[in-house]
Amino acid sequence: MAGNSFGKIYNLTTFGESHGEAIGGIIDGCPAGLEVDMEAIDLEMQRRKPGQSAIVTQRKEPDSVTFLSGIFEGKTTGTPIGFVIQNTNQKSKDYSHIKDTYRPSHADYTYDKKYGIRDYRGGGRSSARETACRVVAGALAKQLLGDIKITAYVSAVGDMELTTHYKELDFSEIERNPVRTADSDMAHKMEAYIKEIRKQGDTIGGVITCVVENVPIGLGEPVFDKLHAELGKAMLSINAVKGFEYGSGFDGTRLKGSEHNDIFNADGTTQTNHSGGVQGGISNGQDIYFNVAFKPVATIMQKQETITKEGETTEMQGKGRHDPCVVPRAVPIVEAMAALVLADFWLLNKVSKL
Amino acid sequence: MAGNSFGKIYNLTTFGESHGEAIGGIIDGCPAGLEVDMEAIDLEMQRRKPGQSAIVTQRKEPDSVTFLSGIFEGKTTGTPIGFVIQNTNQKSKDYSHIKDTYRPSHADYTYDKKYGIRDYRGGGRSSARETACRVVAGALAKQLLGDIKITAYVSAVGDMELTTHYKELDFSEIERNPVRTADSDMAHKMEAYIKEIRKQGDTIGGVITCVVENVPIGLGEPVFDKLHAELGKAMLSINAVKGFEYGSGFDGTRLKGSEHNDIFNADGTTQTNHSGGVQGGISNGQDIYFNVAFKPVATIMQKQETITKEGETTEMQGKGRHDPCVVPRAVPIVEAMAALVLADFWLLNKVSKL
Amino acid sequence: MAGNSFGKIYNLTTFGESHGEAIGGIIDGCPAGLEVDMEAIDLEMQRRKPGQSAIVTQRKEPDSVTFLSGIFEGKTTGTPIGFVIQNTNQKSKDYSHIKDTYRPSHADYTYDKKYGIRDYRGGGRSSARETACRVVAGALAKQLLGDIKITAYVSAVGDMELTTHYKELDFSEIERNPVRTADSDMAHKMEAYIKEIRKQGDTIGGVITCVVENVPIGLGEPVFDKLHAELGKAMLSINAVKGFEYGSGFDGTRLKGSEHNDIFNADGTTQTNHSGGVQGGISNGQDIYFNVAFKPVATIMQKQETITKEGETTEMQGKGRHDPCVVPRAVPIVEAMAALVLADFWLLNKVSKL
Amino acid sequence: MAGNSFGKIYNLTTFGESHGEAIGGIIDGCPAGLEVDMEAIDLEMQRRKPGQSAIVTQRKEPDSVTFLSGIFEGKTTGTPIGFVIQNTNQKSKDYSHIKDTYRPSHADYTYDKKYGIRDYRGGGRSSARETACRVVAGALAKQLLGDIKITAYVSAVGDMELTTHYKELDFSEIERNPVRTADSDMAHKMEAYIKEIRKQGDTIGGVITCVVENVPIGLGEPVFDKLHAELGKAMLSINAVKGFEYGSGFDGTRLKGSEHNDIFNADGTTQTNHSGGVQGGISNGQDIYFNVAFKPVATIMQKQETITKEGETTEMQGKGRHDPCVVPRAVPIVEAMAALVLADFWLLNKVSKL
Repeated sequence: MAGNSFGKIYNLTTFGESHGEAIGGIIDGCPAGLEVDMEAIDLEMQRRKPGQSAIVTQRKEPDSVTFLSGIFEGKTTGTPIGFVIQNTNQKSKDYSHIKDTYRPSHADYTYDKKYGIRDYRGGGRSSARETACRVVAGALAKQLLGDIKITAYVSAVGDMELTTHYKELDFSEIERNPVRTADSDMAHKMEAYIKEIRKQGDTIGGVITCVVENVPIGLGEPVFDKLHAELGKAMLSINAVKGFEYGSGFDGTRLKGSEHNDIFNADGTTQTNHSGGVQGGISNGQDIYFNVAFKPVATIMQKQETITKEGETTEMQGKGRHDPCVVPRAVPIVEAMAALVLADFWLLNKVSKL
Repeated sequence: MAGNSFGKIYNLTTFGESHGEAIGGIIDGCPAGLEVDMEAIDLEMQRRKPGQSAIVTQRKEPDSVTFLSGIFEGKTTGTPIGFVIQNTNQKSKDYSHIKDTYRPSHADYTYDKKYGIRDYRGGGRSSARETACRVVAGALAKQLLGDIKITAYVSAVGDMELTTHYKELDFSEIERNPVRTADSDMAHKMEAYIKEIRKQGDTIGGVITCVVENVPIGLGEPVFDKLHAELGKAMLSINAVKGFEYGSGFDGTRLKGSEHNDIFNADGTTQTNHSGGVQGGISNGQDIYFNVAFKPVATIMQKQETITKEGETTEMQGKGRHDPCVVPRAVPIVEAMAALVLADFWLLNKVSKL
Repeated sequence: MAGNSFGKIYNLTTFGESHGEAIGGIIDGCPAGLEVDMEAIDLEMQRRKPGQSAIVTQRKEPDSVTFLSGIFEGKTTGTPIGFVIQNTNQKSKDYSHIKDTYRPSHADYTYDKKYGIRDYRGGGRSSARETACRVVAGALAKQLLGDIKITAYVSAVGDMELTTHYKELDFSEIERNPVRTADSDMAHKMEAYIKEIRKQGDTIGGVITCVVENVPIGLGEPVFDKLHAELGKAMLSINAVKGFEYGSGFDGTRLKGSEHNDIFNADGTTQTNHSGGVQGGISNGQDIYFNVAFKPVATIMQKQETITKEGETTEMQGKGRHDPCVVPRAVPIVEAMAALVLADFWLLNKVSKL
Repeated sequence: MAGNSFGKIYNLTTFGESHGEAIGGIIDGCPAGLEVDMEAIDLEMQRRKPGQSAIVTQRKEPDSVTFLSGIFEGKTTGTPIGFVIQNTNQKSKDYSHIKDTYRPSHADYTYDKKYGIRDYRGGGRSSARETACRVVAGALAKQLLGDIKITAYVSAVGDMELTTHYKELDFSEIERNPVRTADSDMAHKMEAYIKEIRKQGDTIGGVITCVVENVPIGLGEPVFDKLHAELGKAMLSINAVKGFEYGSGFDGTRLKGSEHNDIFNADGTTQTNHSGGVQGGISNGQDIYFNVAFKPVATIMQKQETITKEGETTEMQGKGRHDPCVVPRAVPIVEAMAALVLADFWLLNKVSKL
């Protein structure tokens, strides 16, 4: 109800504010008998954590997860998996400047109006720190999904776009560069650009593309819970996301039916894949691919006019260590959310027919 | 679970296949005491129904809704509102050609694979006929929402785009032209283009823009059920939708933070509205606006290669009366889904604080 | 949310007032491929319908169900199964006496206070007529459950109790007598007693016992959704029910652990079954058995003091045709609700482990 | 889905095994702005904790709860409230005897069969230790409920019954005796009896009665989510519970309608309260009262025959420190579950009418 849970069968509920004692969550509905690869989970956490490269926030948060239940002798037991991640980076002194002042394009104002109270330390609940919990649950979901392969990469930073079709990219390049794009030349340009943006005390938006391969046919539930609709919701629930498109997306609106239709091969595969692997809300076995639009981070190192809680005009400037561009660190988050959606539909599909 | 319900408090569950006896639904959770304007509901149904103009499908379906419960002496009683819409246009003879053949870029193949059985008459459950039920529930939700004003219009057909900012458009124009765009010149061009496309036996995609005005502050539930995330899911659940963006959307990814941030006025309103009326997943009182991408209709009046259930290659051609472009009739559906999301969050927000 | 849905995967949502146009519902989540035995559904409806014998209400309602979707060529398709049952017995003239008067121990008063409006014709939504929809969905659930056998019977009418252990009863007797008890001698006594009660213009309570045989091991979800907890909720949601106990029940509270514990046989079965087939909320393969307490019907053919909507004291007397004892007709309802619970957990259990 | 969550709006999800690192939970949907009385929460924990008197288990568990989020400067913020309770009493050496052996009338067997794996230390997830989390959430719910007063007490231990009507009892007596019954004479007898039972190495069942006073009219959602149906489910979800009855309960089945009906006073209150404060599933403002049946604890200090995982017959005897009678410690758990149900319906009722 209150929006802190995701998924029907494979269900994640999270809690925690950025500067409280800890964040964490409960994964309920993970089937029993899954051998848990803790290193793989840790690896995903490393991909998301602050301070990992020169182009992301330089905050130091180890972000190690402690599992409290639901895993016994290395395997899931079918009972809820509780976990916590300590907040080690709280500095309460840092937040006096935002206690009574609303940061532009942040959620300070809306939280205050909705709840009448706000944990003003950092972003509180609205901070992207919460996404660390999604990465934990997503990393486990990936293990559940076995052969289904989820790969996200940065396809645009500002107006620098990697337009190469994903089939022609070398995905092994992604983790070799701090931008997490799939082309080394583009990686250098994007990296330089982000550094330039940071020097200006500014931030820049970007796009992440995600590809899911080896998808079984039949995932997704019509009518309202179409596979791509849940993927869209999952992506739009990530901080800073402004748009989602899959398959031919917005460009596909310019095509004619005769151009857009995916003609079948005899084996049920299709010659093209404008559909993005989904027909009628159900996976058809072709690759699922989609784009996720991220706005520029709202916290900038420049003076901005704003208002106080009491409606007085004031000026403020970002403090501390923030991301000049969120997309490099958002890549594992996009993958995690995709994994949550797919794991859930994979389990749901087990009861579709007798 | 099985995906035929939408909404947490204001909840719609639908049933029905395009060529079964009837479609219908149950609206549960509508508060008691709402005076129901039946004409307003009928009007929305008229906006969606086939045969309403020369550029949509020429099928004749009266699409009148019968309420069976939950309304007494003109008011909602707080009990579930059951309704049915008879299917008067079934022609069972028409469907032999798709009984064993999979139409390209339709859901025939995926339904068959997922369920092992498929009602092959028309699109069955995957037909957009189901959206008539959404329009019923959405029309009622609009009444619940009172002053909140939801307006959708066609902003692109193929590559013909209406680029004028919504603030400068005359919304009263929308219902004056069959395309449902908000500019009469553009309406003529789009209409002519759609007729040309139809002559080719082809179809074309398009974009619908939706604007929500007079939104109270505080709607939307962090973390997973952000207002824009639910709007996104709602739109992506509509047949043929391939993408969703709100506020600055995909274009916003090219901006810097210093350009993108919405600076507050002293009264809490903002000087710009790149945020699209939502901060941290919660409405901030500014207009909500978003774009929805529709692919071209898959059924075309041209010969296409395809396969049979048994994997044999064959040819098929659309029969009957289909939409050359779906967006004119999808305008009320977009509004209906937006109304469902807003009504639900409006009710949910009543328990956000003491 | 608003309480008109039951079940997580196999989900029933119902609508309808006793004297509206129709009642009905949507069964969502029934797996595809189930051959539907329409006669078996009709048979269950016959067991519940008014007028079936001399000891139940003499109202005439044919109660035939029309399926509108989700079944194609005799099989479920995995899409929602919509159905309606027409209300043929409405007599609007009959209800002026309860329009502004609250019947004692009925829901008139609470509905009015909760909703501010009430469909005063018959019981409206609070009428047990709604349970016809449960019987439809339960009859289908029984078919899904295959070998799992659910048998309910009347074990008490007033203080006449059938104390024989269920294992020693001949269940084939149940449908041979109008009381639906499992012993012919007791049936005669109960029948005579109910007739006597009716003559007095009074009503009497009773108890229904239900036994579920051939239950697979593993049904039920700890912690909150224990098998017996859902069964209890299901039964308590039936009109007039005041209590639920399973296995040793209230009598078991008087036993010592050394008397109550069920000792295992080598094959995992148990020598006794005080547990009632459930351990830790999960079925253990032994018979599930439970008792359901029904209060006497509130509508009596005697003058009672009561109050009007405006708080004036008045007198009223039941009119029309009512049940002197509800348990004979409640037997198929108890079975239906048990079937809904079991079908749901049976489906859920398919995702408990890898 | 997997059964570890309770409540629709005021929602609790719990995690944790009895001998894992910690247990805990997330309370989602608690409205913002509630001042949290931490001492009151701690007090409830003290009422439930082991070792509190001579007639309960002598295990020592401090059971102090740590809140990790959702409370800021003493008030709830509307964001999820995460909490943990460390398990300080784990002794891994103690459990070799139950690793491969199924304790009679425990959940070892069913968990193993359902999940294929079981945390055999203590009861694992099936241990009543989990109820500590319910007490935390229930204690907070009580604070939300303000004037609504929930009082539970032991009304039977074995066949020693406190038959005095609750209206004639002095509730202030309850916390003055270790049995938590509401009569000091009976308390002495019950206490002596429990000590005798313990000496025998045996256990005994009992009944808890719960009374809710000052209930607003209108709580509860027809049809399936009737107030008493949710209360019943809530109680039946507590470990060792075998039955639930409210108002006249099972005894009421022996009454005639003319005896059972509650006649209205002019102000809408009733002269009797056989209904137990609920009509048609909705609270009518009268006291809600109900009984909960608890079976004797399954772990006894006597030798019992049982079987191993491999189906071999063996003998076992309870070890360690267990409750000879569960009801004294279950009193705060019953109250907590009642509070969860009432808080949830109280919030839900805010959207029942315009």
